[in-house]
Amino acid sequence: MTEKIVLCECFARDGLQHENALIPAATKIEAIDRFASLGFGRVEATSFTNPKNVPQFADATEVLTGIVRRPGVRFKATCVNPRSVERALAAAVAGHGPEEISVLLSASEAHTKRNLNRTPAEQWANVEAMIAAAAGQFVLVGTISVALGCPFEGHVDPAVVVADAERLASLGVKLIAIGDTTGMGNPRTVQTLFRRLFDAVPGITPIAHFHDTRGTAIANCVAAYEAGVRCFDSAFGGVGGHPVSISYGGGYTGNVCTEDLVGVFSQMGIDTGLDLGRLIETAQWCEQVLGRPLRGMVTRSGLANAGGKHG
Amino acid sequence: MTEKIVLCECFARDGLQHENALIPAATKIEAIDRFASLGFGRVEATSFTNPKNVPQFADATEVLTGIVRRPGVRFKATCVNPRSVERALAAAVAGHGPEEISVLLSASEAHTKRNLNRTPAEQWANVEAMIAAAAGQFVLVGTISVALGCPFEGHVDPAVVVADAERLASLGVKLIAIGDTTGMGNPRTVQTLFRRLFDAVPGITPIAHFHDTRGTAIANCVAAYEAGVRCFDSAFGGVGGHPVSISYGGGYTGNVCTEDLVGVFSQMGIDTGLDLGRLIETAQWCEQVLGRPLRGMVTRSGLANAGGKHG
Repeated sequence: MTEKIVLCECFARDGLQHENALIPAATKIEAIDRFASLGFGRVEATSFTNPKNVPQFADATEVLTGIVRRPGVRFKATCVNPRSVERALAAAVAGHGPEEISVLLSASEAHTKRNLNRTPAEQWANVEAMIAAAAGQFVLVGTISVALGCPFEGHVDPAVVVADAERLASLGVKLIAIGDTTGMGNPRTVQTLFRRLFDAVPGITPIAHFHDTRGTAIANCVAAYEAGVRCFDSAFGGVGGHPVSISYGGGYTGNVCTEDLVGVFSQMGIDTGLDLGRLIETAQWCEQVLGRPLRGMVTRSGLANAGGKHG
Repeated sequence: MTEKIVLCECFARDGLQHENALIPAATKIEAIDRFASLGFGRVEATSFTNPKNVPQFADATEVLTGIVRRPGVRFKATCVNPRSVERALAAAVAGHGPEEISVLLSASEAHTKRNLNRTPAEQWANVEAMIAAAAGQFVLVGTISVALGCPFEGHVDPAVVVADAERLASLGVKLIAIGDTTGMGNPRTVQTLFRRLFDAVPGITPIAHFHDTRGTAIANCVAAYEAGVRCFDSAFGGVGGHPVSISYGGGYTGNVCTEDLVGVFSQMGIDTGLDLGRLIETAQWCEQVLGRPLRGMVTRSGLANAGGKHG
């Protein structure tokens, strides 16, 4: 099995979704161009959700139009309903579509109802309509939220996640992101879930989409790697998720921090395909964009394989 | 092999060593009593270093005199030279000695010279004199700094650490703390080192003493656990180590955060022997003592196995 991994940089979408300040489209375009030039194989660029619900991404088409396309880099847009797929298709017709779109579902009934305001049956009808509309136009990513624990229901049975993944696969979705939405997974549950997924749904490529709500995200990514996962979502500075005020479980719920995750993978000798020399510079640029220090540790300390800043 | 682990809470010594403010002895005593009542099997209480060098621990004897002794809890004091062992012995004669003392060495020559101001030969002469003075009076802990990487030399050969551990064992030291002083280890180097230690020096009990300089401490503790380590050092709030201004590698160099480490271990079903219900309350009390938010994530988010604060 190859050691090489593919990271998806999520700063521009999952990272910015709950920022209070609206980030100008030009800044988002610069961010995405920076990420793509660093060597990320996938970059989450924007969301086609209703701008009335998430004003941050009212500029979705403008951003997708402005970014530089590069061989070997796929840009992703998030879609939540058939209407958002129509917007993605309109951008594609105009020559500026995303290469990937992601469709979202929740592994627990309570989270489906509270986060998506749908019953599980309505959720699947919605997912099937999105997939039917998008089929053949984009690479499809199915994202299963709260797959390692639900803030409302607690334990989530891995069998439910496996069944969701099987259903997505039967609909032609091969990339399946396993979302630890509120950081409830641990290295053992992570390994168990991915091993069951690899066994039960062998045709898919699972993606670890982990949040660091409880300080476990790096350990969980290492565990996922050991279980055979080679695709990871992360965000510079560990930004993203729900801010304290509206988070389900309280506290920080940011994505696993890109620069720290790349730091540990590169220390482990795992090929990330990234320009490590520009990694910290990019993390610092992200801090300037948001106007505050973010959560990256190597941004302060330097990469260990460089012996630290003073090494 | 037992799943149960023994944590040593280091807030009161490693945690406070580089705090600018002098913490009153009464507060340290309350902290240590709180930790001991929570169920820690070991608590780092103070240091017998020269008060001129580290004024924070000028109250070492006062603190050891004031704390409540409990069955099943050992209190540790750090010693750096034979004079500090004499102070520990004097406290013991007065009936208030630590149960454990730790002696410090560095795995790299450059760190020995810069941190301890000694050559490796002088370092070993010092360690042997300390052990000779302390033998039979205390449980001895040998702490090997920069065992997983040196900020000055970079890579540290595991063979050097194994040789240091063998030499400590030959001097009668059975508890050996492996210090990742500036967070340069990763899950692979951690597993390699501990497996070599278990193979080469079977009579010892290794302790993982990890810092979170690069966000890897939790992942490294999980890796150490998987390699068979059952003793861990940690500090509430992830405090400790060298502040940014004087740190070797730049940036944060705090200990692995107790509440987050206990969080992930308890999620994994590993028995920590701790009162989880009072864990976060204690972390919040530590934040009050230092007058600032510390780095614990579960302090904000709640333990995952409780389903988060809203679960």
